[in-house]
Amino acid sequence: MKSPAEIVSTMMEKDEFSRFLGMTVAEITEGYCSLSMHISENMTNGFGIVHGGISYSLADSTLAFVANSRGKKCVSIDTSITHLASVQSGDTLLTKSTEIHYGKQVAVYLVDVFNQNDKRIAHFKGTVKISENSW
Amino acid sequence: MKSPAEIVSTMMEKDEFSRFLGMTVAEITEGYCSLSMHISENMTNGFGIVHGGISYSLADSTLAFVANSRGKKCVSIDTSITHLASVQSGDTLLTKSTEIHYGKQVAVYLVDVFNQNDKRIAHFKGTVKISENSW
Amino acid sequence: MKSPAEIVSTMMEKDEFSRFLGMTVAEITEGYCSLSMHISENMTNGFGIVHGGISYSLADSTLAFVANSRGKKCVSIDTSITHLASVQSGDTLLTKSTEIHYGKQVAVYLVDVFNQNDKRIAHFKGTVKISENSW
Amino acid sequence: MKSPAEIVSTMMEKDEFSRFLGMTVAEITEGYCSLSMHISENMTNGFGIVHGGISYSLADSTLAFVANSRGKKCVSIDTSITHLASVQSGDTLLTKSTEIHYGKQVAVYLVDVFNQNDKRIAHFKGTVKISENSW
Repeated sequence: MKSPAEIVSTMMEKDEFSRFLGMTVAEITEGYCSLSMHISENMTNGFGIVHGGISYSLADSTLAFVANSRGKKCVSIDTSITHLASVQSGDTLLTKSTEIHYGKQVAVYLVDVFNQNDKRIAHFKGTVKISENSW
Repeated sequence: MKSPAEIVSTMMEKDEFSRFLGMTVAEITEGYCSLSMHISENMTNGFGIVHGGISYSLADSTLAFVANSRGKKCVSIDTSITHLASVQSGDTLLTKSTEIHYGKQVAVYLVDVFNQNDKRIAHFKGTVKISENSW
Repeated sequence: MKSPAEIVSTMMEKDEFSRFLGMTVAEITEGYCSLSMHISENMTNGFGIVHGGISYSLADSTLAFVANSRGKKCVSIDTSITHLASVQSGDTLLTKSTEIHYGKQVAVYLVDVFNQNDKRIAHFKGTVKISENSW
Repeated sequence: MKSPAEIVSTMMEKDEFSRFLGMTVAEITEGYCSLSMHISENMTNGFGIVHGGISYSLADSTLAFVANSRGKKCVSIDTSITHLASVQSGDTLLTKSTEIHYGKQVAVYLVDVFNQNDKRIAHFKGTVKISENSW
């Protein structure tokens, strides 16, 4: 059976978009994941602050890694995100996951996104379907 | 007062990320927005299918444009997305918005995301805060 | 195989809470459900308007009936509701469902809740897990 | 200025539905609320287990009390609930709130719902609009 780090390493190889955005794995254990990412200039939205898709993508990758860390392949069903503070070009974001539930078929995780000043900038919730296929 | 097309044009100038991903405005009128986007190879996730952050970002930009199309500046509060079918590299995505509510302080929109075969691949809901500032 | 009306009739027999609140089935067909309910005096919240749990419960029952109307037993996973206008004691609420997706394992429905003046007072989204058990 | 307990006491007087369902305040301080509720026989749904509207209503009242505990009147915008385990007639439910964010105009809370065996049966998230009116 693969370790959480091996699973995420395998996923990261295929995960062109997470690498493209510059995400790096700060921590991965069974049931916990933390990702980091530096915000560059081409990530702003129509208000000149960082696009909501950036913090969503970072949180969604965190969800994918933590949900799969337990060895079963999981795919996302429902996700929601609340944007709490604006992000600026030049910021560095860090995610922290919380495992709310890991059942037979469904798991639920929270992902909080912080900036370099430890300010929470977004709160994310994700529900995944646990398949019977192992990594 | 600026027209919806003028507002979105002004937003698009600042919206580095939407342009970076290759989003184009298919239609914008007061209370309606449709965006289009071609999926390239660097948009996959750890399963080799397209990252959920891509369809989220496209839907979130659609939300931003349609919510601001009525002339008042709006910022996103809560958004959620349900992924319904996988997206492949090479696909072309198209969004269609539905205005559920435009009140005094809060507005609610749905955004459906379709692929080139008219298959719905994601369903998105967004709640925005309507500010008193005009475009 | 049972008809949608037969399935909902069977469910309603066990559904003490929906009957307790006075819900009645306005329409049930395969993939569509509409419920009606009169608001009584003991349904207010701490602001003296109707408790959010009332419109949620009505929408959630609508979800349960429409999701099960296709013959497979379905249980709710994630639901969300946006409250758009206040409801008063004496109002009559009516729901209308929209089937967004009915896949192999997951289905997604919207439920809009209207008052007696056709004003939309809440918008609800529900994701259900489709089991292999038939009614 | 009223204390959290005074605010919730004032709200509970008007909150016919929470009293009707038998909710009691286990704890209320600034930024925290815990409610308790016994499940009776008339709270089941079409599967004979407890209706999702019950745990939603309990979580929604918890949200209302904790959000208003800081002295400003708050109304719910978006709420979502994930049902994690079934509830039976005879169970006793207990909620615990977590304050994620309390900003200038918007606040976000999580509410976890547990049964008498400390098993988490639902996870709820609520976003509220903070008004300028004090209690």
